[in-house]
Order: sequence, then structure tokens, then C-alpha cells
Amino acid sequence: MSKTSIKIKTLFAEQATQMGQEVTVRGWIRNHRKQKNMGFIELYDGSCFKSLQLVYTTEKDVDGTLKSLHNGSCIEATGTVRQGFQNELIELNVAEVTLLGDCPEDYPMQPKRHSIEFLRENAYLRPRTRLFQAVFRIRSVAAQAIHSYFTDRGFLYVHTPLITANDAEGAGNTFTVTTLDVGGTKSNTEMSVEEAFKEDFFGMPTSLAVTGQLEAEVFAMAFGEVYTFGPTFRAENSNTKTHAAEFWMIEPEMAFCDLDRLMDVEEDFLKSILGYIMERCDDELVFLEGFSKLSLRERMQAVIDSKIIRVRHEEAIRILRESGEDFEFEPKYGEDIAKEHEKYLTEKHFKAPVFVYDWPKDIKAFYMYQNEDGKTVAAVDLLVPGAGELMGGSQREVRYERLKARMNELGISADSMWWYLNLRKYGSCDHAGFGMGFERLLIYVTGMENIRDVIPFHRTPGSCDY
Amino acid sequence: MSKTSIKIKTLFAEQATQMGQEVTVRGWIRNHRKQKNMGFIELYDGSCFKSLQLVYTTEKDVDGTLKSLHNGSCIEATGTVRQGFQNELIELNVAEVTLLGDCPEDYPMQPKRHSIEFLRENAYLRPRTRLFQAVFRIRSVAAQAIHSYFTDRGFLYVHTPLITANDAEGAGNTFTVTTLDVGGTKSNTEMSVEEAFKEDFFGMPTSLAVTGQLEAEVFAMAFGEVYTFGPTFRAENSNTKTHAAEFWMIEPEMAFCDLDRLMDVEEDFLKSILGYIMERCDDELVFLEGFSKLSLRERMQAVIDSKIIRVRHEEAIRILRESGEDFEFEPKYGEDIAKEHEKYLTEKHFKAPVFVYDWPKDIKAFYMYQNEDGKTVAAVDLLVPGAGELMGGSQREVRYERLKARMNELGISADSMWWYLNLRKYGSCDHAGFGMGFERLLIYVTGMENIRDVIPFHRTPGSCDY
Repeated sequence: MSKTSIKIKTLFAEQATQMGQEVTVRGWIRNHRKQKNMGFIELYDGSCFKSLQLVYTTEKDVDGTLKSLHNGSCIEATGTVRQGFQNELIELNVAEVTLLGDCPEDYPMQPKRHSIEFLRENAYLRPRTRLFQAVFRIRSVAAQAIHSYFTDRGFLYVHTPLITANDAEGAGNTFTVTTLDVGGTKSNTEMSVEEAFKEDFFGMPTSLAVTGQLEAEVFAMAFGEVYTFGPTFRAENSNTKTHAAEFWMIEPEMAFCDLDRLMDVEEDFLKSILGYIMERCDDELVFLEGFSKLSLRERMQAVIDSKIIRVRHEEAIRILRESGEDFEFEPKYGEDIAKEHEKYLTEKHFKAPVFVYDWPKDIKAFYMYQNEDGKTVAAVDLLVPGAGELMGGSQREVRYERLKARMNELGISADSMWWYLNLRKYGSCDHAGFGMGFERLLIYVTGMENIRDVIPFHRTPGSCDY
Repeated sequence: MSKTSIKIKTLFAEQATQMGQEVTVRGWIRNHRKQKNMGFIELYDGSCFKSLQLVYTTEKDVDGTLKSLHNGSCIEATGTVRQGFQNELIELNVAEVTLLGDCPEDYPMQPKRHSIEFLRENAYLRPRTRLFQAVFRIRSVAAQAIHSYFTDRGFLYVHTPLITANDAEGAGNTFTVTTLDVGGTKSNTEMSVEEAFKEDFFGMPTSLAVTGQLEAEVFAMAFGEVYTFGPTFRAENSNTKTHAAEFWMIEPEMAFCDLDRLMDVEEDFLKSILGYIMERCDDELVFLEGFSKLSLRERMQAVIDSKIIRVRHEEAIRILRESGEDFEFEPKYGEDIAKEHEKYLTEKHFKAPVFVYDWPKDIKAFYMYQNEDGKTVAAVDLLVPGAGELMGGSQREVRYERLKARMNELGISADSMWWYLNLRKYGSCDHAGFGMGFERLLIYVTGMENIRDVIPFHRTPGSCDY
């Protein structure tokens, strides 16, 4: 580590002043092409999407050290920066190379197109491929975008708890968290469930949180505008392209906010995030467009330039019913909207992103504001062309008696939620918030089809590798 | 929500131009003082630490609406901005107030000093107190500081998995994650443990991660410099002031990095984070200094101005042994350094932060670089006056055979860690990283004594409320 090195990103950014200079770079060999008199090494260091071309002549490579370098090896190279021949990029005319870490010839990541399934199996090596350099760079930049958006606007970042006793009763699709014996292998039939859990770490049944919203509401009633950004868990035993047992979620919550303003914020947030990513990840997006055959930047720009349509659920159903389309599922008043319906609304009818709001209360959560019609709640789903439902939000029910009555109707214990109810008693105000699955955004932005390919190490039924 | 409102933070920031203007603010009543002819309402909205004083005359309050406002109530107030009488702050000469959410007189958060234990029990209301407005604002700003630090330097942000099969075998202090029955209440004695776990969600025993480092190393070998910032879990059954079962951790990992450079980065990182917080949280720190009777800003500034001392573990032990101090635990070569020793080194001997490096290998983790002396590893702990150990890091062992031999010695299965070992086979290079417990930093910065008071909702043995 004696020599001062420069990152490839910096080298490209400063190429005007670096031209003709001797520099040292460190990184990994993506590809090594050998010709009769020359060799070309494609070197990446993870600082940017672009590789740097190293050029050497066999004449200088007297002992054949350079020629014997394998793909995947880690090297340090010193040489002179010069204009490349084939394109406008600079390259390095190599004077000296040190092998830092060799890579055997049976290295799984060869410079060819591997199947996405093979890469998924080799999740510990796939971040080295161009595809996943693009995907995970965008993941990181998107996370920055989200933190910047809220920080710039004075939102407080809240870490809501991951281990919770709230959802432990009967929700069904949660993971149990315990220090007790599992699976009934050590039986203790004389003990009741209640007694058993007294022995557990927390002295009660606990599970992994499926949302941080309720705790975020606590903080919105103290700090006004807050957001969470953290992992969330669902023990849903469904092997689909869009479900994972562990994923990250963003949940902003705002005091003094009704449904209209919520939609304003969601719209501004989405456009801002997409713009932030487009500004910083052009190389990555160009590559992913080639991979996915989707016009990723074009469709993001279309969202940024759009005025998002706002339509009541009832009206959306009417449009669907009168569309003359041959849907697999019949659109019905009072019922959910299927994926095919979302697609029709956003891609055929409106040709724009759509807020569907005022949903039938029976298909939405207990905490949503009950509209005066007695049938709907002030909930809103954001549907985006090519992405489907990207965000879901609502104004919250802040009327103590109405909330309690709704909890009763749905069999939710008011006893365990005393604190959530009390928020409505002590200086409450209209508030609203939304949730966005981080991976859902990433699937849309990167054009990757499977949630397994936008998460570093995915957790799905039967799969917990690395 | 018809009126355009302004945040109190903005009002103070723009007070020169706001003077004499009519504005509307929304927030909560911290305190309502009533005099014969006038009333004073201390209003906060969570946008900043400062409250805004609302002033009204009883003359204008004909029907007594204003006078009847309770502490804790949520209101909207319109009035004219004017210079306050008692200090340099502006105040609002109230023309109209709307009650948005009443608060009964038995509201637990009264404008008096509550015990810290009472506030902890009322964790859903304590974010409204000045103390916790200060603590949780600093928590949010510190998180921003960390993201900004790494983002500005091109580090990739990685979300390492929370559910893992890595630590499931024998580590002991992990939480089991399962969808199976728990606690032996439903017995199935015909099934072996292996068979039982085949039925579990992931088809294997899984637990909550105690570190993201190993997966971060995967990404460092692809992106060069990366960091994690996420929740971490320990099922340690110890009821101390510094242990929680769920806490947040920051783990940067850097390729082409040895122990010296690691210390450089840790030093720069800490100073930068402290500076960032001091720049943005002066009001909060002043308040917390009053609460804790500690010179918080002074001790942070001393760290920023210091050159952090670097001393080998052996030398540190020698200093301690020759100190003439009457320690409870005798400092011994080859053994750990106790809290009292840390205190002596940082507060008495060096009067500065200290890096203690080259630790005895037997008291450190398997993945640390084995020094040539055969006795020590290239590990480093950062000790800070008033904080104790704040960060722990190491250069990683990248020599395949040495790592494997060490794992064997310690009984760590090479089979389950094949991918971690393989990182050393495929284009490896020197790399190093450190971990910092986020709450440990917050305890130091805020002067709060208990980890339970720097986490929104703490999880500790027997406690999983909210």
C-alpha cells in the first residue's frame, strides 16, 4: 500500500489535467485480451461504472508477468494517462503491474453473459459483474436520494423497532422472534403457551415488524414531519417475482396533512427521487436499458414530466367497466383493483401515473380515515406505468371513538393498542403518510424483473444463503 | 388545513423579513401561562428545538376560548410577528386560534420535570418533551451525518441481510427467527431437530444478524469502499445501561486498506461526524448540557482538535501496569482492557482519544489479520474520553490457509462459510473495516446515561413495549 493511488472515477472526472501524468490505480481485471504484440486489460475498481483500459506491449513484458494475469485478479498498475484510440476515453499506458490477489482460471465469473439464475446462486460474486455493479450502485444512490429528500425538507429520521409485540397476535404472516426452543422438538406439554412465553427473552410473544407506521405516528405527533427507512418482514409463503421475506420500506408520516396534501407530497417525492437517480446513474441506466430492452430513462422522464392523475376508486372502477377490455378479473365496485386493471388505467386509458383514492373501507386497514359516505376511507394508491402500485398511503383516523369502533369491528385488541388510541386523545391533529417498498422502486428503475435481483442477499421461502 | 402555515424553524430563520407580517403557525402547547390581562402560550411544532411564544390579551379573548386552552393541545394560531419583550426572540401577537386537538387536564406530560423512568414508561409521549426533542433530533442529524460522510467519499451503501443462517450454530446470543411453533407447547417428539427445521420458512435454522461485516466484505471486493447502516440484534440477557437487544450499527469496509489507513479513516470519520452534529444542533446540545451537567460541546471539540494517540495493546498494558493506580482488575498482557483501564488511558494518562491496536489474537475474532509475531492480530479499538470504546475494527485475514486454520482452531465450520473463504481465492486484496454502535455514539454526544433513552422504543430483556 505504499504508492498513492487514484480512483478510476476521479481519473475520468479529471482526465483533462491527468493527461500525460503517471498514476497508479488498483482494481480487478474484468477482461484481459491478448494480441501478438500487445495486451489490453479492462480494469474496474467499483468507484464508477466505467472500466479503465490498461494497455501494454509484449516487448515490455519481458518475463511474461502481464500476459499471465487472469480475469478476476486484483492488481495495482502504474502507467501514463493517454488518449485512447477507439473512443473518447482515456487509457493507461502501463509501465508496471503488481499482482495483489490472483484469481484461478476456474473463477465462476467469466467475461461472458451468465444466466440471471447462475448469478443469483453466486450472489457473493455477482456484485462484480457489470449488471450488478449497475443495480447495486442505483440501490445505493436511490437510498441517498430518499434520505436527501426528507432531510432537505426538515423531516426527522426515525428508527422504529424491528422486534415488536404489536403484530404477534393472529396476524399470521409474521416471523416469530424467540430465544425459546423451536419446532416442538423439546416438548413441555405441562406448560401453557402463556407460561412458555413468560420464559422468552421479552416475556411475551414477539415477532418481526411488518410496518413502522404506528410508531412513526407517535413521532409525527411530536416532530411534525418524520420518516422511517428500514427493513420490514413478511413471512408470506409465496414464491413470486415480487415478494421477499425481508425488504426495505420508506414510511413518511406528516402532521397537519390531509389526503390532498399527501398526494402532493407523494408526487413531488417520486419525481424528485427519479430525477436524483437519473442525474447520477446515466452509465448504469444505459447499460440496464441494453440488458432489459426497456426505455428506462424515457419512462422515468415521462413520470417526471407528467401531472399525476387523481381519480376516486369508484370512478376508476367505472372507467374499467366501461373500457370494453376483456379482463381476466371483472372490475367490481367495492373491490380491489387487479394488476391488469392497473396496467389498463396507467398505460392505456390515462397514459400517465394515477392516484386512485377513496377506497372501499372493507379492503383497507383499520387506521384509515373514514369518509362521510360511510363506505370509503381516505386511502390512496399510486399506480405508475410499468411499475403498478408503487406507494400506498392514507389520511389516518384521528377520531378516537370511530377508530376504536373500527378496531372492534375488525377484532383488533384495543388493549394492546392503548398507546395508539391515546395519540388521538392527547393533542391530536389530522395526519397522513404513505409507504413505499424500496425494492419495488428499484425493480421499476432498473428494469430487473425479480426482487431477488435488486437485493444484495435475498430471503425468500426456502432460501437464506450467505 | 385551508390556511397557509409557516414552520417555527422558518419563522426564526427569516425573522428579519417576517417582522410585522401576519402568519399562521400550527403546533402543540408546551406551556400556557395565564396572567390577569394577558396569556402566554409556548408553542412548538417539532421543526426546531425552540418554541414560539404566542401572546394574547384577555380583552381580545372575549369568550374565553384562548384562556381555556390546555397544555398538550394542538392548535392553529394566526397573528402578527413582533419583537419579544424579554429576549431577542420574536413572538406572535395572536389574533385568532383554532383548537385542532384538545388535550385533557390529566395529560401525563405536564410542564414540569418528570423522572427519566416515568418518561421511559411513556415512550409514546416522551418525544414531545424538550429532553427527547433534543435527543431524537440529534439521533436524526447524526444518521444524516453518517450517510453524508460516506456518500461524499463515494462509499456504496449496502443493505446486508437481517435474517441469517450464518450465526445460527452455537453462537448462543442470537434470536431465533421462525414460523414454527415455539416453546415446546405443541410437541412433536417423533421429529428430529433437522427434520423440524425443514418445515421452517427457510428450510433451515435462522437467526437475527449480529453483524453485517461478512456480507460487507463481499461488496468491498466489488465496489472497493462500502458501508452498512442498519439494525443489529443481540439476545444477551444483561440488564445494563449500555446493552439493548436491538440497536443500529455502522460498518464500513474498505479494499486496499491496512490497519494504518483504517485508523486514519476512523479518526477523520469521528471528527467529521462530531463537527456535523455540533454545527446543526447547538440549541439541543446547550439544553442537554444543562440536563446532564456535562460539557458536551467542549469534550466533542477536544476530540475534533486532538491528534488521536496510537498505542499497541502491549504498550497500553505496560502503561497501565506502571501507572501506580489502584485498579479493581489488574491489567494483564494478553488480556482485555477493562472500562477503568480505558478511563485511565484516555482521561488521565493521554488526556486524549486513543487507538489501541495489535490485540492478543485469542481475545479477538477469527477474521482478523494475524500479525507476524504469531500472538497478535491487526485489530484496533478506539477509546474516547467520556465514551470508552466507540469503534472496533481490524484489517481482515485474506490469506486463505491462515484463515481456514484459525476457523478450525475456533471450531467455526468452513463448510457454512465457504463463500467467505472463497473471497480470499478470487482476486482478494488487503481490506479493513470497523464497526460503530450508533447508540454508543449517541450516548456520548447527548450525555444520556442509558441506551434506553437514545432509542425511540427500546428492546431489552423483558421489555418490548409499543
